[in-house]
Amino acid sequence: MTDHLVLFMPSGKRGRFEKGTPVLDAARELGVYVESVCGGRGICGRCQIEIQEGQFAKHRITSSNENISAFGAKEKRYAEKRDLKEGRRLSCSATIEGDLVVDVPQEGQINAAVIRKNDDGRIIERNPAVQLCYVEVEEPDMHKPLGDLDRLKHALEQDWGWTDLMVDSHLLPKVQKKLREGEWKVTAVIHKDMETSRPSLIALYPGLKNEAYGIACDIGSTTIAMHLVSMLSGTTVASSGAPNPQIRFGEDLMSRVSYVMMNPEGREAMTVAVRNSLNNLIENVCTEANVEPKDIFDLVFVGNPIMHHLFLGIDPTELGGAPFALAVSGAVHSWATDLELSVNTGARVYILPCIAGHVGADAAAVTLCEGPHRQSENMLVVDVGTNAEIVLGNKDRVVAASSPTGPAFEGAEISCGQRAAPGAIERVRIDPETLEPKVRVIGVEAWSDDPGFEAASSQTGVTGVCGSAIIEVVAEMFLAGIISEDGVVDGSLAAKSPRIIEEGRTFSYLLWDGEQRLVIKQTDVRAIQLAKAALYAGIKLLMDKLGIEEVDSISFAGAFGTFIDPKYAMVLGLIPDCDLKKVKAVGNAAGYGAKMALLNRDYRREIEETVNKIEKIETALEPDFQQHFVNAMAMPNKVEPFPKLAEQVKLPEKKSNADGGDGTGRRRRRRARV
Amino acid sequence: MTDHLVLFMPSGKRGRFEKGTPVLDAARELGVYVESVCGGRGICGRCQIEIQEGQFAKHRITSSNENISAFGAKEKRYAEKRDLKEGRRLSCSATIEGDLVVDVPQEGQINAAVIRKNDDGRIIERNPAVQLCYVEVEEPDMHKPLGDLDRLKHALEQDWGWTDLMVDSHLLPKVQKKLREGEWKVTAVIHKDMETSRPSLIALYPGLKNEAYGIACDIGSTTIAMHLVSMLSGTTVASSGAPNPQIRFGEDLMSRVSYVMMNPEGREAMTVAVRNSLNNLIENVCTEANVEPKDIFDLVFVGNPIMHHLFLGIDPTELGGAPFALAVSGAVHSWATDLELSVNTGARVYILPCIAGHVGADAAAVTLCEGPHRQSENMLVVDVGTNAEIVLGNKDRVVAASSPTGPAFEGAEISCGQRAAPGAIERVRIDPETLEPKVRVIGVEAWSDDPGFEAASSQTGVTGVCGSAIIEVVAEMFLAGIISEDGVVDGSLAAKSPRIIEEGRTFSYLLWDGEQRLVIKQTDVRAIQLAKAALYAGIKLLMDKLGIEEVDSISFAGAFGTFIDPKYAMVLGLIPDCDLKKVKAVGNAAGYGAKMALLNRDYRREIEETVNKIEKIETALEPDFQQHFVNAMAMPNKVEPFPKLAEQVKLPEKKSNADGGDGTGRRRRRRARV
Repeated sequence: MTDHLVLFMPSGKRGRFEKGTPVLDAARELGVYVESVCGGRGICGRCQIEIQEGQFAKHRITSSNENISAFGAKEKRYAEKRDLKEGRRLSCSATIEGDLVVDVPQEGQINAAVIRKNDDGRIIERNPAVQLCYVEVEEPDMHKPLGDLDRLKHALEQDWGWTDLMVDSHLLPKVQKKLREGEWKVTAVIHKDMETSRPSLIALYPGLKNEAYGIACDIGSTTIAMHLVSMLSGTTVASSGAPNPQIRFGEDLMSRVSYVMMNPEGREAMTVAVRNSLNNLIENVCTEANVEPKDIFDLVFVGNPIMHHLFLGIDPTELGGAPFALAVSGAVHSWATDLELSVNTGARVYILPCIAGHVGADAAAVTLCEGPHRQSENMLVVDVGTNAEIVLGNKDRVVAASSPTGPAFEGAEISCGQRAAPGAIERVRIDPETLEPKVRVIGVEAWSDDPGFEAASSQTGVTGVCGSAIIEVVAEMFLAGIISEDGVVDGSLAAKSPRIIEEGRTFSYLLWDGEQRLVIKQTDVRAIQLAKAALYAGIKLLMDKLGIEEVDSISFAGAFGTFIDPKYAMVLGLIPDCDLKKVKAVGNAAGYGAKMALLNRDYRREIEETVNKIEKIETALEPDFQQHFVNAMAMPNKVEPFPKLAEQVKLPEKKSNADGGDGTGRRRRRRARV
Repeated sequence: MTDHLVLFMPSGKRGRFEKGTPVLDAARELGVYVESVCGGRGICGRCQIEIQEGQFAKHRITSSNENISAFGAKEKRYAEKRDLKEGRRLSCSATIEGDLVVDVPQEGQINAAVIRKNDDGRIIERNPAVQLCYVEVEEPDMHKPLGDLDRLKHALEQDWGWTDLMVDSHLLPKVQKKLREGEWKVTAVIHKDMETSRPSLIALYPGLKNEAYGIACDIGSTTIAMHLVSMLSGTTVASSGAPNPQIRFGEDLMSRVSYVMMNPEGREAMTVAVRNSLNNLIENVCTEANVEPKDIFDLVFVGNPIMHHLFLGIDPTELGGAPFALAVSGAVHSWATDLELSVNTGARVYILPCIAGHVGADAAAVTLCEGPHRQSENMLVVDVGTNAEIVLGNKDRVVAASSPTGPAFEGAEISCGQRAAPGAIERVRIDPETLEPKVRVIGVEAWSDDPGFEAASSQTGVTGVCGSAIIEVVAEMFLAGIISEDGVVDGSLAAKSPRIIEEGRTFSYLLWDGEQRLVIKQTDVRAIQLAKAALYAGIKLLMDKLGIEEVDSISFAGAFGTFIDPKYAMVLGLIPDCDLKKVKAVGNAAGYGAKMALLNRDYRREIEETVNKIEKIETALEPDFQQHFVNAMAMPNKVEPFPKLAEQVKLPEKKSNADGGDGTGRRRRRRARV
């Protein structure tokens, strides 16, 4: 028998191959992604593998280093010149001589997760749109007067199978010099995204070029988060974040749209601002990782529709009113130079599709990352910002909507709210007996009841409540019985605790009595109620669409989701009843989704198809939305039971009053109409 | 029988169609190009046809206006609003009701042939890379939140079959405004060149856009010739020419290459000069035809390799020495903006392939125009400039070469030579009895022996001999017996005519004895001999390659070819023996080839394939070249008989001397080595 069984890990792909087949060829045939720049010349060292030894009973393979060819000349030369780790082999050289379990080392983990917390070791299988291809080009011959570029194209077709190659204009004046500099050995950077697209030669280097980088970036309305990724190893080599400079034109998205509508130069100013900021971030990540910006060849961006439009130079005015028409909803393929980004001249840009006028490319990236469309169970994905973007479904059907939660979750409508910064309260516990709180502030490890807290917090002070903690405060107030399930601060408790303070017709809770007095007012509770009711009503609407009574898992994306404790979110009824173990905060899932699309163009097709199929629900057009909203004002809900929550958290006994009673009815109506 | 025979003229394509089929659909099915912008809505009026009435025995059709549907509502509306010429029908509306001979009116003739003389009424069948497509786009719908651009793409797919459409980045910010301006009716400009390329949306207009233009341009080293062409009718609406501004960097090509080699900024200066000149010409042709430059969407350029490279911003240094490596020989697809041309932002550029280092895209265009590769007989195509580009062959095999003729044919090495300008001698006759000449000068109708000549030429004077006339002068001198077949001015004739003048060891001929004395010296004759010998030797080499003893037809391209009398060219032995009726001057065939490639992308594929197949001969590497060159010094040739010429022109009796004897041997060697 000359056929041998070869199993590739971690993909698990396997096949039978003739004795003597190079391992790289076997991988290619099975569609296992093994990088190679030099095309099997044994000089780039990118195609390293390791053999796993032992009996793999499950797969009926006994693999050993006996079953692979001995160290060949190419490998010896490479090992002498560079460093070939013990046990590593070059798969272009080593051939199959028996059954093998081949480990393709994955260096694809993010190693500097400044923004994303839960990279959770997931491996992104790679199939990038950009590839480095080393070739040796025939020298000019007067008898066959093909142009230098034409012989280069010929070599790329012969060695790498690139037929019908297009060439970026900017390269034409450079080809001859590069070929001669490299003595007819060059590395071509080829871009091919869609199957129907012709490949393009986008850059060219003399000799062997052994590194290429990409950018994955989430343009948030508040923060821009950028990752610099090695296209060859899949590693994130640097990450950086910056406040979105457009904040000076308006804190929230709608005020930025208004700015454009009021100022003729407003759109351009905001486009310039975001592009400049992106260029600064590119400089930052490159400096951090000691990478040249011109070594960046592919960039993937995501963002909400308004950021998406402003980045592309599109006037977002249409997004400011019904029917909220996007200029473009599908994926955008563009050039870095067209978007004034300072990277390689030939670099390409891919922007994920937007789902709807209020559900952007960021939500698409979160969807790609979390993958409700890959689940058999129903997954709820929530990305909370000024609008909450909600995606719900499974592999058969996915629905999406945006809920007008307003900025309360970001602390904007809360009297003592502040941005997440040192001194801001981020954690709260209230003793249900004494109603005394303890807090933790950003920048200080200790809780406020710890003896060392006063000294430790002397630098920061205790200055306000940050956006994500507002949920925790209100939920703790509810759990401690300070507010009723209808959200009314119980004035009768003023007798029991001095922290309950009468203010006109309503009562407040004194959360902190230090240099600054931080008071949670009745109106603050109302603001949270309105926001959470909007979010829940949106989710409920999507559940109605799918005809389901409960969701199987919940992913909380975004900065808000990163810091929120899912328990409190459920106690307040932001999200539907669910096993708390199946509720997770997934951090900057949008950035991770962008990285997936950067490293594997199949993910681009996956999210394009998914977005096409997602049913978009416009909450403003749904007659049931208002009723769901009214029901969801109560904590956790007026009509929905939360049996799983009740099993996991001790909820206070009901002491409802019939109506919120302080004017929220009016505000509720206004919101429900948004 | 519900099937009717329909024959389209002038293409002659025919087919059977069901009663009721719109004539436009029938044309489409048969691949007959009928323009339509509005996609059959009866508003653009581009799809007009006429019915030919009568019996067409050869085709067995009886066609009449009875066999086409009566004037429909769409046609009536169009005829009311615009002007529908008597007898014209809209093929999108009119349906087939019986056998028909359909005339597709061809308005594709050049109507302002400033440069090209012999447009000879040829019709260029059209299949342009650029198409106007009118669509009505669905309005935004909150229930189906597809982007505006996405709905536009959908409409273009539905109505026009454009799948997988790419969109130029520069359009993204404009789409929404255009759609709303046009009240959801827009005209898209789509570019698709190769079959394997995805179509691109390159421009967008509110409402119906009913005109689009293209540029066909030959960038000659001396002159740039440009044609502005209506893409919809195929008509050349304006033509203009300008001296190539690079002349100030060097008269001939090699001195321009030297300039680049000596001056670090030389390449850029020349690129800027030619692009500026092109922009000026674009302005000129647009002004002349009252067209906006932004209505130009497609541009086709041809030029010799050095012009081609400088236009593209490529350093031509490599073309200055062996192995004469072209940076790029294949066709170039680019963007007008990348080449700094002031036309529509989305406009595309196509540049024909170069054949070899000395045989450029201009020669390819001449080949496309004359079509040796389409002939069953052997066709010789010669384009004379500083180098002569020679293409020879038939449908089975084509060979090409360049011969180093030097600038003598352009009058540069001739003592009394001058540029073609008023006052320059352009025609000469010498009486073989009296040796008295008569001449005609540019700007004056009369011959010099006409009584009115003196008055008529008082403005211009008689100032020199223009490039193309030099051939005629020397040939007439030969026919009159003033020079021997070896090119020696016969001093013995000084006794017979005072026009034979002794000058040192050699004799000269006094061509004009007016305010200026114009003398043809022995060295002038030698210069022409050297040039013609180089040209003939190159042709002979190609004939050797094909193993043929004679050619069946000869096309003389280029400005030189335009003005030369083929008879004299053959008398001097520039070209091989041939029936003079089969020798024609084809003027700016390069420009016409460019126009063909502009109007029909099939011609682009045709010339790309042809150039691929052409066998390129490097004269410098061919051992036989020198012997052919030596043989060809004589008039018409030392060893080749010219039997057909002898039948058509009375050649002088032989009175050869053994050797040129005046140092031409030295020069001959130098040239043969080039």
